[in-house]
Amino acid sequence: MKTLIKNALILTMNETDDQPVTGDILIKDHTIQYIGTVSEEIADEVIQADGMVAMPGLINTHNHSPMSLLRAFSDDLRLMEWLEKKMLPAEARMTKEDIYWGSMLAIIEMIKSGTTSYADMYIHMDYIAEAVKDSGIRASLTRGLIQLKDDGGKRLEEGLELMQKWSGKADGRITTMLGPHAPYTCPPSFIEKIATLAKEMQVPIHIHLAETHEEVSKMKQKYGKTPTQYLYDLGLFSGDYHVLLAHGVHVDDQDISFLKANKGGIAHNPFSNLKLGCGIAPIKKYLDAGITVGIGTDGAGSASSLDLFKEMKFTGGLQKVNYFDPTVIDAKTLLKMATIEGAKLLHIDRYVGTLEVGKLADIILIDIMQPHLVPHNDIYALLAYSATGSDVHTSIIHGNIVMRDRKLQTVDEAFVLREALQRVQRLIKEI
Amino acid sequence: MKTLIKNALILTMNETDDQPVTGDILIKDHTIQYIGTVSEEIADEVIQADGMVAMPGLINTHNHSPMSLLRAFSDDLRLMEWLEKKMLPAEARMTKEDIYWGSMLAIIEMIKSGTTSYADMYIHMDYIAEAVKDSGIRASLTRGLIQLKDDGGKRLEEGLELMQKWSGKADGRITTMLGPHAPYTCPPSFIEKIATLAKEMQVPIHIHLAETHEEVSKMKQKYGKTPTQYLYDLGLFSGDYHVLLAHGVHVDDQDISFLKANKGGIAHNPFSNLKLGCGIAPIKKYLDAGITVGIGTDGAGSASSLDLFKEMKFTGGLQKVNYFDPTVIDAKTLLKMATIEGAKLLHIDRYVGTLEVGKLADIILIDIMQPHLVPHNDIYALLAYSATGSDVHTSIIHGNIVMRDRKLQTVDEAFVLREALQRVQRLIKEI
Repeated sequence: MKTLIKNALILTMNETDDQPVTGDILIKDHTIQYIGTVSEEIADEVIQADGMVAMPGLINTHNHSPMSLLRAFSDDLRLMEWLEKKMLPAEARMTKEDIYWGSMLAIIEMIKSGTTSYADMYIHMDYIAEAVKDSGIRASLTRGLIQLKDDGGKRLEEGLELMQKWSGKADGRITTMLGPHAPYTCPPSFIEKIATLAKEMQVPIHIHLAETHEEVSKMKQKYGKTPTQYLYDLGLFSGDYHVLLAHGVHVDDQDISFLKANKGGIAHNPFSNLKLGCGIAPIKKYLDAGITVGIGTDGAGSASSLDLFKEMKFTGGLQKVNYFDPTVIDAKTLLKMATIEGAKLLHIDRYVGTLEVGKLADIILIDIMQPHLVPHNDIYALLAYSATGSDVHTSIIHGNIVMRDRKLQTVDEAFVLREALQRVQRLIKEI
Repeated sequence: MKTLIKNALILTMNETDDQPVTGDILIKDHTIQYIGTVSEEIADEVIQADGMVAMPGLINTHNHSPMSLLRAFSDDLRLMEWLEKKMLPAEARMTKEDIYWGSMLAIIEMIKSGTTSYADMYIHMDYIAEAVKDSGIRASLTRGLIQLKDDGGKRLEEGLELMQKWSGKADGRITTMLGPHAPYTCPPSFIEKIATLAKEMQVPIHIHLAETHEEVSKMKQKYGKTPTQYLYDLGLFSGDYHVLLAHGVHVDDQDISFLKANKGGIAHNPFSNLKLGCGIAPIKKYLDAGITVGIGTDGAGSASSLDLFKEMKFTGGLQKVNYFDPTVIDAKTLLKMATIEGAKLLHIDRYVGTLEVGKLADIILIDIMQPHLVPHNDIYALLAYSATGSDVHTSIIHGNIVMRDRKLQTVDEAFVLREALQRVQRLIKEI
């Protein structure tokens, strides 16, 4: 099967291509076979892309997908009230089928706003894996492991089962990570156990880090060190591990130096951090230190939507204002964070994250003939600061067209919306 | 002519209606005639609005519309470099026709993202007024008056001509203001002259205030006072005037107390303030002091897009993080700022800004049956934090349907886009 994208303005996001060039992209089966000028005759299917940008699909580096059912459910509350009075009671009542449909709701929102790969940490991961499989998206799945109460190792067992059962499945679109939830929910012995497993099995780790002031205070009180130093002292940033760190809002300069050898990096979730009143992560400092930074949304319970174009605007705007300097971050850097840097965090950058011959075809087409995207003075700036998820016209994941002219090809959108509405009605009654 | 909106989830934004209710809205000519249950038979035209929210159109309280031609033209630069090396040379080469088409580009973007009224300060206002007239939007127009160089009173003359020629025109959709540009570009004698005229003619004033640190320093050096105190001492906030103040980023507590008697208020432009590295305006403090705050975008040269849904997210997120407290501002407050509070700033709140019988019909319909807008747990939160301009399905201004199913009814969108692209190509060659 050969699919041809014809006459797009191609933004490869490769280091070597600085400016977008008009051309064609030939996809054979799952892979990009050629970028340049290709005759329509050799293709089985041609996508006319005049007036569109073709770029790598976006990569959401941190999400809890079923929380999309809890969108707009408890906004404008303090974090602990939000969590304990609203999120946890609702999550406790979610069935496995709720997990599937909540995850599917999140996935179709992500596909419709240009995301082609994402990282998910939650529970009942089998049901999320099924939604990933059915929808056609690419995902890195992690069973979240909280070790405050001893569960006899049940959660960890589920985490390991997820890896055995699903890693490499769904046509190779699913990868997995180990997921100790956070420094404040995992004692040293548990972190060490996970680290040993991660090294043995050669898998990355996905963990929350330093999301709030309170977390840092608690850790200092309990261990006499910051959450970052806590993990550093346990050897997690030695360079032997690939650790995907969600948030990293409250870190000092020493903390940042601790992170330099880590093979993973920071998943920055700006809007969720703002909405919960957490703070502004020092992204400029991470970048200055050479630490990989990707962009995420966090779950829709706090993020409200899963649009990475929105998060790029917040990432850029917040760093500029934080240092009173518009030059500390630029549009191209933001787009790299949302594509190839995110791919590095998910440990899939050898396969996706740029448009290159031989890489898997995860490609989005963005319609730039719209009032808010004209004129086309600087395509990077246009995409980072002016575009929104709704401007994504077509999405190709793993060589398959999963959305075309904004219509999903793999999932019945109206059915998912009705399921989600009904399930939430039931959930809210139960609370 | 009677138009009926049938089966919408109606958000009136009235003080007395807290929760949205499903119902119908009957529009007769330009006015809302009835809200409740209305038989389809009595209407000339019926808009089926199942699955949609009907709410007052949004009000953009600060814009320089022709700068939409300079979108993505000079991002990631320091403000003075942005202004002097890029914006001013480009603006100097704009023809009157460029002004018309640049303004039209901005207007169609605003209509497509839910804005039904806006405030504009620029030059060659005749051409902007023509675009307002042709497009069907509602606008408050101001000729910007910079008095650094003596122009023999030419600019002020143009400002007065604008008022005489256009106030109340375009079926009553156009109002006007007097526009001294900013404290640092207008000496005391000029501000006093404008104030006298504003009082005599009973018209509001539109002015920039305290956008940057540098502006505050300069004014302190020159006059020994902040920009806010400068205008206060000249009597502008005595309560005799309605002053629309754009930005108000750098104000101290005394400055805020100076603003309490002003009949106007603050036009907050959060994304532009961030992108230029200016700062975060203390919106919580303004609200605590009882000062009216509306939301604006500023020109697209800095704002990148004119989507007030984006600006609501920034307004909310920034205040929450600025005070490390998610409760300092809520979704309903944000929606009020984008509607009725904005109407107050434009001095048109007797006619628009809420859905009430007798008010002019400026109404937008938002399609909430979309993956990023399901479920419908809290409509205020959904609109403020999850929706984007692209979710606006239909827009009615002054009783006229100006957009239907995202298709503009008054303007040829493709033609405007082509004009804008061609004009910018020429402009850039000339620079």
